[in-house]
Amino acid sequence: MLTLILGFLSVSCTTLPTSEAHDPLPSWNDGPSKKGIVEFVRDVTDATSANFVEPPERIAVFDNDGTLWAEKPIYFQFFFILDRIRAMAPDHPEWQATQPFQAVLENDFETLGASDRDTLAHMMGIAVSGTTTEEFEDIVKNWLATALHPVTGQPYTSMVYQPMLELLDYLEANGFTNFIVSGGGIGFMRPWSEAVYGIPPERVVGTSMELEYELLDGKPVIQRKSQLHFLNDKGGKPVSIERFIGRRPILAAGNSDGDYQMLEWTTAGEGKRLGLIVHHTDAKREWAYDRDSSNGRLDHGLDNAAANGWLLIDMASEWRLVFPAD
Amino acid sequence: MLTLILGFLSVSCTTLPTSEAHDPLPSWNDGPSKKGIVEFVRDVTDATSANFVEPPERIAVFDNDGTLWAEKPIYFQFFFILDRIRAMAPDHPEWQATQPFQAVLENDFETLGASDRDTLAHMMGIAVSGTTTEEFEDIVKNWLATALHPVTGQPYTSMVYQPMLELLDYLEANGFTNFIVSGGGIGFMRPWSEAVYGIPPERVVGTSMELEYELLDGKPVIQRKSQLHFLNDKGGKPVSIERFIGRRPILAAGNSDGDYQMLEWTTAGEGKRLGLIVHHTDAKREWAYDRDSSNGRLDHGLDNAAANGWLLIDMASEWRLVFPAD
Repeated sequence: MLTLILGFLSVSCTTLPTSEAHDPLPSWNDGPSKKGIVEFVRDVTDATSANFVEPPERIAVFDNDGTLWAEKPIYFQFFFILDRIRAMAPDHPEWQATQPFQAVLENDFETLGASDRDTLAHMMGIAVSGTTTEEFEDIVKNWLATALHPVTGQPYTSMVYQPMLELLDYLEANGFTNFIVSGGGIGFMRPWSEAVYGIPPERVVGTSMELEYELLDGKPVIQRKSQLHFLNDKGGKPVSIERFIGRRPILAAGNSDGDYQMLEWTTAGEGKRLGLIVHHTDAKREWAYDRDSSNGRLDHGLDNAAANGWLLIDMASEWRLVFPAD
Repeated sequence: MLTLILGFLSVSCTTLPTSEAHDPLPSWNDGPSKKGIVEFVRDVTDATSANFVEPPERIAVFDNDGTLWAEKPIYFQFFFILDRIRAMAPDHPEWQATQPFQAVLENDFETLGASDRDTLAHMMGIAVSGTTTEEFEDIVKNWLATALHPVTGQPYTSMVYQPMLELLDYLEANGFTNFIVSGGGIGFMRPWSEAVYGIPPERVVGTSMELEYELLDGKPVIQRKSQLHFLNDKGGKPVSIERFIGRRPILAAGNSDGDYQMLEWTTAGEGKRLGLIVHHTDAKREWAYDRDSSNGRLDHGLDNAAANGWLLIDMASEWRLVFPAD
């Protein structure tokens, strides 16, 4: 709430010159993306501008994997799935001889990588189900507190993008309301989204599993089921935005073709809009990939960004820092 | 946002005696419900209390039909469905001889009332689909602007409960965040929830239809489909609360057995909680019904309210006014 109040004060003071002295995006080099972002925010928050947008309509939506934190060599949630299968294995002796579980337990990534999509989806469903929602929250928190990224050796939550954290803060300070709209699981993101991004659980939208309310020994619980409820990717993202938010955003940020429709829906609205694509061009500090990547593939978006007026954020040249510890 | 700021200031000033002079619930007679509500709010907002709750966790959920506005003789949304079928009929000549459409067009409520649940659900699905989300919003707004309640002759949005409007305001002023969690359609409630209740679209949870993102003549739209996506009733309400809000509420208000699990889930949480049931006891100013009503049936909740510590709001004796115009 304090952020909202500061946002309100900031909005009320847009005519004062004080905000000019302070760079709200210090990890961004001066370049077309920073310029475009700042011009957009100034325009829609300037009460004298034809493009002024009332605060409640200043909705910004962010993809998570590859947009707010890294997603290589595989989605971080998939590392969680693998560890969860390992942790559950003692109760499932049959997994020693059942694929793809066997491949996980034997670290046989070749077999795992060759598994078809439905087989993997089935395994993922099992890994994120069989607990109550409250138990699952603890499982995710405990995992994040100890798990380390296999390449950097860092906790996953330290592999968030410093420039994007600044962008989230900058928008909130200007009366925006930020939402995550991710292909990742809602239940996987919510336990840490507020601490890491300042985005509370009610503003985290993602892929969801079926849930079931029941009385367990007389105590009400919500059980996580292994069946998928909604896959929040591609055309599913605008659908979720409509269902959860009920307003069309004025800013959308993504990094892959899974975000294309979210950016398309956002920027096709009336008035001034902003579409942002994080372009992973930095093999030295992060990873460099786009059209040929197995996850975070950016192809259609790369072809059409300019025509759609979306800003391609060149990570290598436009970000002074990538991770907070840099 | 201003409400949030006022809420914050109000919370910050709870030690000052000024709030005592002003009755925040003037349409409530002094009685057990008003007393219970005021004591609860004072307790959870008092930073020195063992039951203090931080503002972000002050989530309150409200059913709509029969809790915030009336629901007799039938759910108001069903009047909308009937009018919508009539409006769509010229494009569907086959409805003249197809039930239950024929019954609607002939005002044959006996046949309509005898239709089975699936048949009615099918008709309702057709009545709320076949348009884009933006077109549907306009249809709902136009209907509400002209339609009149068949018994009172009043616009439906004037048949909201004045004491509940005051309760919503009182909670917001004390740092609560109010959500609607209704069996009614999300798309039917959002076009007017903010104007009537001060509850913005992103805080309206309800029954939802399947939606589909598509390009229509090159323009992105979200189409409303006739298939049900999620029925937000009974055990579905805690599931939706988990999915949309991701926090367990500390206050829940309903009026029927469809709200039972929402109250159960809310009040079973740790710390101080409040469950409220609007009991329709006022045949003179509104309607009197509970166990034997076809809609808004309150039976299990009536039996268990006292044991669960839920407050039964006796409309006849505890509400000084029912509707704002009274």
